[in-house]
Amino acid sequence: MERLILVLNAGSSSLKFSLFTVRTAGEMDAVAVGQIEGLGTAPRLKVKDGAGERIADEQWDKGEVSGHAQALQRIAGLLRSRFQGSVLAGVGHRVVHGGPDYAAPLLVTPEAMRRLEDFIPLAPLHQPHNLAAIRAVQEVQPDLPQVACFDTAFHQTQERVAQFYGLPYEYFERGVRRYGFHGLSYEYIAGALPAVAPAIAGGRVVVAHLGSGASMCAMRAGRSVGSSMGFTALDGLLMGTRPGNMDPGIVLYLLQQEGMSAKQIEDLLYKRSGLLGLSGIGNDMRVLLASEDARARLAIEHFVYRIGRELGALAAVLGGLDALVFTAGIGENSARIRELVCEQAAWLGIEIDRAANETGGPCISRGGKASAWVLPTNEELMIARHTRHLLAL
Amino acid sequence: MERLILVLNAGSSSLKFSLFTVRTAGEMDAVAVGQIEGLGTAPRLKVKDGAGERIADEQWDKGEVSGHAQALQRIAGLLRSRFQGSVLAGVGHRVVHGGPDYAAPLLVTPEAMRRLEDFIPLAPLHQPHNLAAIRAVQEVQPDLPQVACFDTAFHQTQERVAQFYGLPYEYFERGVRRYGFHGLSYEYIAGALPAVAPAIAGGRVVVAHLGSGASMCAMRAGRSVGSSMGFTALDGLLMGTRPGNMDPGIVLYLLQQEGMSAKQIEDLLYKRSGLLGLSGIGNDMRVLLASEDARARLAIEHFVYRIGRELGALAAVLGGLDALVFTAGIGENSARIRELVCEQAAWLGIEIDRAANETGGPCISRGGKASAWVLPTNEELMIARHTRHLLAL
Repeated sequence: MERLILVLNAGSSSLKFSLFTVRTAGEMDAVAVGQIEGLGTAPRLKVKDGAGERIADEQWDKGEVSGHAQALQRIAGLLRSRFQGSVLAGVGHRVVHGGPDYAAPLLVTPEAMRRLEDFIPLAPLHQPHNLAAIRAVQEVQPDLPQVACFDTAFHQTQERVAQFYGLPYEYFERGVRRYGFHGLSYEYIAGALPAVAPAIAGGRVVVAHLGSGASMCAMRAGRSVGSSMGFTALDGLLMGTRPGNMDPGIVLYLLQQEGMSAKQIEDLLYKRSGLLGLSGIGNDMRVLLASEDARARLAIEHFVYRIGRELGALAAVLGGLDALVFTAGIGENSARIRELVCEQAAWLGIEIDRAANETGGPCISRGGKASAWVLPTNEELMIARHTRHLLAL
Repeated sequence: MERLILVLNAGSSSLKFSLFTVRTAGEMDAVAVGQIEGLGTAPRLKVKDGAGERIADEQWDKGEVSGHAQALQRIAGLLRSRFQGSVLAGVGHRVVHGGPDYAAPLLVTPEAMRRLEDFIPLAPLHQPHNLAAIRAVQEVQPDLPQVACFDTAFHQTQERVAQFYGLPYEYFERGVRRYGFHGLSYEYIAGALPAVAPAIAGGRVVVAHLGSGASMCAMRAGRSVGSSMGFTALDGLLMGTRPGNMDPGIVLYLLQQEGMSAKQIEDLLYKRSGLLGLSGIGNDMRVLLASEDARARLAIEHFVYRIGRELGALAAVLGGLDALVFTAGIGENSARIRELVCEQAAWLGIEIDRAANETGGPCISRGGKASAWVLPTNEELMIARHTRHLLAL
C-alpha cells in the first residue's frame, strides 16, 4: 500500500499543506499541494495535484470552517477520497521556533509539546498556530506520528559569539538571542549545492532567501555561521511588509514621542512597513518592478542596498566570499533584482553573466573571484524528508 | 587683547568645557580643559591647563550648583579670574541633533533655537541639555555670539537611499531616518587625513570611533557615505552601556512578554547593556582587557565581532576598502583591540604591523591591499574651529 507524508504549515489565518508519496527508494513526489486561507473571515480551499492541475477550489462561510481543526478536517476529507488505497504514515510540521534547545527536527511527544509551548513568547504570532495544527491532528488520529521541523534549527551551528545581542547576559540565558529563520530553506540549499555546484559547496557561501519574508545566511561548508535574521523575523533585510534591521531607539520614539501602543507598533512593523510602506503601492516585487512610480523605485533601490550591506557583513563573518546563491520567490524569479544585487557585489569579485541570469542559471556569473547562482528552494520537501527519516519510512 | 573661544558640551548631569586662544594665524591652543560632573547629586569641578596641570578641583553641595546655569557661572568665574586681560569672543556648543535641516554648524539666533527645539523628540536625552547650555550663556551675556555644532551634520552628505529605514515613507518625511552621530569626530579625522595619510585621504576609508559611545563611518574622499549609527545613538556597534544594533522585535518582546515600560527599556538600552551588560563587570575596556573572567572575554569578543560585521557592511557601501582608521578612547589607546579588529579584517587585505601597533602608529599596517591607522580625534578643537570660522575671528 502506498504510504503518504502530509506536510503542514499553519499560519494565523491559513493552513498550507503538501502531500508526498514515499517510495521504497528515491526522492518523494508531491501529489497534492494546497492551502486554506481566510480562516476566520472567508475560508477558501485551493488544491493542485503534482502536475499543477487544479483538484479543488471551494469556499465556505466563516462559521463552517473557523479554525485549524476544522480546516484540517476539510483537507483530510478531500485527500482521503482522492487517495483511497494509500495510507498516511506521518505528518511533518513547520514550526517556527525550536528555541535554544533544538538543533534538529523532533518526533512530537507530550513532553516535546510542553517544551515547544515554552517558546510561544519568542514567536507569539506564529508558534501558537504551528502547535494548534499539531494538536488538531492529534485529536483526529492520536496514533499518527508527527514531526516538528524548526525554522531556527539549521542556525544552531553558529558560534556562540554570533548568537548574542548587546543586552545584559541574563537576557541571553533566558532566550533573547539571535536564532535566525528560514532554516529549512537554507538546509535544502545546502543539501542541493554538492550536486549543482560542487566547487563551492565546501566553501564560503551566502544564500539570499528573498521572498515576502527575506533573509540571508552565511554558510561555511554547508553549515550556518551567520544570518541576517535574529531574535524575530523582523530583523535583517527589507521585506514585503517588514522593515528589517532597525534602530531599537525608533521603537522607543514611537512609544514615547508618538504615543503608539505596543500592539500598534507590532502592526506597523509586521504588516505596514517594508516594500509596502516605502513604496505606498504594495509588497509585490513584480508590481514594483513594473511601476514607473518614484517611490516604487526607491523601495527597490533600498531593498537592494540593504542586501548589499548585509552581504558585506556576512562576507566578514566568512572571512571572504566564494559564492552568492539566490533563492525563494524574488530570488528565483526576478532577474532584475539579481542583476542589481550582483552589480553592487562587484567589489567581492562577482561578475554577472547577463544571458545566464535572464534564463535563470543555475550559474549566473563568469570568471570573477566569486560566483553567483540561482537555486530553487523547497522547504516542504525538506520537511517531508525529515519526517521520513525520523519515522524510518 | 587675547581672544578666547569657549567650547561647551552639556550632558544631563555634566558640563564639559575647553577654552581655546585664537591667534592671528595658525591653530588654536587649548588653555583650559575641564568639567563639572554630578550635577544634581554631588557636583564636582575639575580643570586642567593646556599642559595638563591641575588648575582646580572643587566640590559643592548639590543645592549650590544644581543646573547648567549655575555650573556655567562657576566655570565662568574661575576662567575670568585666570584669564584676566583676555576677552571671550564666542562660545561653540556641541549639539547632538541638527535634524534633517542642518548640514553645517550654525550661528545661534532666536529662530534657530526654535528649530533646534523641534528636534528634542529625536534626541530627548541629549538635545534639551545642549540647548539649556546655550540659554544659560544667553542669560549671562546676551550679546556673546554662540555657534551650534551638530553631531549629525557631517553625515548629511550620505545618499538618500542610505538614510532610510524600512518604515512607511511618511516616517522618513517626519524625521525618522538614519542620521549618524560622532560627526564632529569624523570631520576632524577627515580634515587630518590629507596631512597624515595623503595616499588614502581621497579613497575609501572606514573610521572606527571607539569610545564609550562607538560608531563607524564610511568615507569616500573625506565625505560620509554611510554610518553604523542611525536614528539614535543606540544603533550600530556594541558600546560601553548600549547594545547597538538590535532586532526591533526584542523591544516588542520586552514590552509584551516581560511587561517592561518604555522608561524601563530606555534605561536598559542606554545604561545597562553593552560591555557592562554582557560582562557583568563594567563598561571600561581597560578593566575588561585586564580581567581573566569568561564573561569579560565574551564581551570583548562580541565587541570585536560586531566591529567586523559593520566593517564588512561599510566596505560594501564603499565598494571596497582602502584604509581603516581607529580613533577615540579605545581606538587610540588599546593596541589589543586594534590587533583583534585588524586580524578579523585580514580578508579585506589588512596586514597588521605589530610593532607599529604597539607604539600607536600612526600607520599600523604594512603591505596589504588596505592599510590601518591610529589617529587621535579632537571634537573640541573641531567645534572651536567652526566657531572661529563662523564668527570670522
